[in-house]
Amino acid sequence: MIGLQRITALMVLGTAIHVMAAGGAVPAAPNGIELPKGYKDWRVIGSSYRSDKKQLRVIVGNDTAVQAARAGNTHPWPDGAILAKLAWKEKVDEHWPTALVPGDFAQAEFMVKDAKKYAATGGWGYARWVGMDQKPYGKDANFVQECLACHTAVKNNDWMFTHPAPFP
Amino acid sequence: MIGLQRITALMVLGTAIHVMAAGGAVPAAPNGIELPKGYKDWRVIGSSYRSDKKQLRVIVGNDTAVQAARAGNTHPWPDGAILAKLAWKEKVDEHWPTALVPGDFAQAEFMVKDAKKYAATGGWGYARWVGMDQKPYGKDANFVQECLACHTAVKNNDWMFTHPAPFP
Repeated sequence: MIGLQRITALMVLGTAIHVMAAGGAVPAAPNGIELPKGYKDWRVIGSSYRSDKKQLRVIVGNDTAVQAARAGNTHPWPDGAILAKLAWKEKVDEHWPTALVPGDFAQAEFMVKDAKKYAATGGWGYARWVGMDQKPYGKDANFVQECLACHTAVKNNDWMFTHPAPFP
Repeated sequence: MIGLQRITALMVLGTAIHVMAAGGAVPAAPNGIELPKGYKDWRVIGSSYRSDKKQLRVIVGNDTAVQAARAGNTHPWPDGAILAKLAWKEKVDEHWPTALVPGDFAQAEFMVKDAKKYAATGGWGYARWVGMDQKPYGKDANFVQECLACHTAVKNNDWMFTHPAPFP
């Protein structure tokens, strides 16, 4: 009886700890990739405008990715490199009608390089968090097949659409 | 005679030092504003696509600007804030025809907030460096009138076209 109480108490405690850990935290992607901390502070690698999606994107990278981009060391990108594509819905600038500017935040997409761990998907792990509430994309880990359906076109560029933008 | 030799030697030395200092350095703008060091490492504040200029832009800021942007403290922006607009010529993505991506680097434009120092131009100092060789824009300090001709439209937004993009 005491044993059962202890087990129950431990279960309750376990649940409480789990809820506390989840408080305000962003859930991992269905493939287990966690939202990289501090990605909003990463440095710029590139940019794009997708007229089909009506989205403005800025591509940023962690230190490993930025160093690789600046050194031209991207064929392949080194292990540890993470690139994030931050996407906003387009909006016409209220004071400059031929300018499109960020409207609502759409999503943050990540490619995480680990040649061994992600060997089955070209050395990259993929993850996406949607909207301001950062909902992980995908019902299960198979969502990566959607990523690969497009990224296979750039297999010869280490599966990466982004070419680092030139800087002075 | 020795005095003249000494003076000549000092002049030669002075010229040599000047050339050394200028080696690789970017000249100041005609109004005296120096190219901010480290701006390529600044964090993202916004983005834009200018269909009239056929340019992709990423707006980054120094720490003071990023902190102000994230805190919504931009009416007015605080003294010390510097925003940079990095612009690239658009290029159609070779593997995604509905995506525009950075081609040649076009220019880096800066707005430097100092309400007292730049009181005559709305509290902002303006500067632009063009191309990969970062040539300062403007024949003389009056180039700022060109800046103001457009920025006056956003006088009520502290002279700033950029609204910080939303982040989760």
